[in-house]
Amino acid sequence: MTISMYAASIPVFKQMLGGLNDILGKAHSYCAEKKVEPQILLSARLFPDMFPLSRQVQIACDFARGVSARLAGIDVPMNDDKEETFEELQALIAKTLTFLDGFAPAQFDGSEDRQIITRAGTPKEKRFSGQNYLLTYGLPQFFFHVTTTYGILRHNGLEVGKRDYMGNY
Amino acid sequence: MTISMYAASIPVFKQMLGGLNDILGKAHSYCAEKKVEPQILLSARLFPDMFPLSRQVQIACDFARGVSARLAGIDVPMNDDKEETFEELQALIAKTLTFLDGFAPAQFDGSEDRQIITRAGTPKEKRFSGQNYLLTYGLPQFFFHVTTTYGILRHNGLEVGKRDYMGNY
Repeated sequence: MTISMYAASIPVFKQMLGGLNDILGKAHSYCAEKKVEPQILLSARLFPDMFPLSRQVQIACDFARGVSARLAGIDVPMNDDKEETFEELQALIAKTLTFLDGFAPAQFDGSEDRQIITRAGTPKEKRFSGQNYLLTYGLPQFFFHVTTTYGILRHNGLEVGKRDYMGNY
Repeated sequence: MTISMYAASIPVFKQMLGGLNDILGKAHSYCAEKKVEPQILLSARLFPDMFPLSRQVQIACDFARGVSARLAGIDVPMNDDKEETFEELQALIAKTLTFLDGFAPAQFDGSEDRQIITRAGTPKEKRFSGQNYLLTYGLPQFFFHVTTTYGILRHNGLEVGKRDYMGNY
């Protein structure tokens, strides 16, 4: 009657990041075909005060890394977020996937009850059980940035579809 | 070391639909304040071949209803998808929330192993375990449409933020 914390996190992140990687590859090819400067897409936003495409990808990877690491109780690996090209963003995704592949399911045993504190020591500090951290915070945040990346590219004419977003499942 | 299928579905749908409902309320108020015809926002899209806002909301509700019903092994309630105003979309969300509230956690017991067949009898037929259906298909689809609704409204200048998207968690 139950599923593991590992199953509810790592394979989901991997599936969606795989899709995201393919979409970025298509966006890169689209730039070459249409003679569009990649920087135009990389800096595209849905609204001036929203993050651009490159930052959306970085944050999606951030959540995949951070949520997994916190649930497993290991240090959250930092990224300097200096990716400026499609190649660099795809390399970031590859690095993130390698990181996710490094987890053994047993590392997530008991993580549903692990206390997770976000923004510790700030006025925005929040405490979660591991289960709530994943389901009510980590996954909604992760999906937000993956979908927004897709939305930015669709809005800019990239011919991808829901199937690309979904990755391999 | 595990979480329930109920916990990984119903509360997540409720949280996000609650946020979506508030965002639609703000969009409606925005139309009144700025003297914008509601139909302009309701029919807004990120790209011509993407669904408009109203349809995004309907599909998000569709997945919340359909995924929950299939996991619990009950008939999937249909909706005629004729909502044409903000009030009607909010009523659809309210109806969906009432439907979700009707499930007892025990109805999801064993659902991780339940065989789920989507598009049965068509060339796109796909078979899932309940666990994979929820994690690799239902949640990614649901979040896609919630986030895209948010993205359409942000793109049209509605002043909402991630906090609105996240709902109460």
